Amino acid sequence: MKYLEDMIRRYGEIEKGNILKVDSFLNHRMDPQVYKEIGKAFLRLFGDCEVTMILTIEASGIGIAAVTAQYFMVPAVFAKKSKTSNIGDDLYSAAVYSYTHRRSNTIVVSKKYLSTDDRVLIIDDFLANGQALMGLKSIVGQAGAELIGCGIVIEKGFQGGGRMLREQGIRVESLAIIDAMTENTVVFKK
Amino acid sequence: MKYLEDMIRRYGEIEKGNILKVDSFLNHRMDPQVYKEIGKAFLRLFGDCEVTMILTIEASGIGIAAVTAQYFMVPAVFAKKSKTSNIGDDLYSAAVYSYTHRRSNTIVVSKKYLSTDDRVLIIDDFLANGQALMGLKSIVGQAGAELIGCGIVIEKGFQGGGRMLREQGIRVESLAIIDAMTENTVVFKK
Repeated sequence: MKYLEDMIRRYGEIEKGNILKVDSFLNHRMDPQVYKEIGKAFLRLFGDCEVTMILTIEASGIGIAAVTAQYFMVPAVFAKKSKTSNIGDDLYSAAVYSYTHRRSNTIVVSKKYLSTDDRVLIIDDFLANGQALMGLKSIVGQAGAELIGCGIVIEKGFQGGGRMLREQGIRVESLAIIDAMTENTVVFKK
Repeated sequence: MKYLEDMIRRYGEIEKGNILKVDSFLNHRMDPQVYKEIGKAFLRLFGDCEVTMILTIEASGIGIAAVTAQYFMVPAVFAKKSKTSNIGDDLYSAAVYSYTHRRSNTIVVSKKYLSTDDRVLIIDDFLANGQALMGLKSIVGQAGAELIGCGIVIEKGFQGGGRMLREQGIRVESLAIIDAMTENTVVFKK
């Protein structure tokens, strides 16, 4: 999506270790126009797939999923990163390793909100190594639900996650795919 | 808001310790119609206040703020609960005690996204003791920005937070105010 690529070129900040910061419009400050374009784009891509629910992971995925859910008019559920004191016990869970925070988290989804009848669209802000999506895919599988696909805002194509997921037959649609990053430039996949 | 009160009566679950669980439509599963009604309601209440940004706190506030921001077409910023490895160093911060999780968290907002020119609407899912809102108010004050008011989805009127904030002259608008809770009923303020 050209609009998103332009936003990344203009406002993205590249830091050591191939970290792309898009805090100014996606991850910390949520730009309303960017979020609107993202929701519309995912609806164009998956609008004919009879999606019954959107699944994402806290925290950065929540806003994107909530706005996208307004376009699909289906519920969005976010996997929680720890078992808080009042989420209940009847949970699907999966382990997810975060390279950013260098630790493994258990993510959980209440069994009440995901069932065998669901047709699930997974939404997330970034796809790099694919660890978060593998965890969400595992939860969809535990529920016996159908995984329709993954809608990603920014894919780091030079890391292995997207290839791994596509080789497993999963439909992965990324609004911007970065082929390469240097200290001060981002090269998008054509 | 009658629609929200009906949802709470129908789908809310009351647990020990005056805990009201609204996971099925607000906090874990985000119901698209509920979120739409919330966004429209906050626009009706604060739409003429020249709000320039919405401020909330992760995680439960993010989806509500993101959808509300679509109605105002202003950015929404969420305070993060810990200094992650890549948010940067130039931060406003405040301590917030969570009664739910029985611990104090430091919340942070990047100085880049909140400035003296901003007219800030704070949005959150619950208001009970007011600890989270006091932290967000402190951050707005540190930035020298103007606090327009607080838009709350569910206020527990029998806890002290709302009164404390209103006594400080802050405009607090709650879409549903609970006056009392028993084991199986919720009584709303008229």
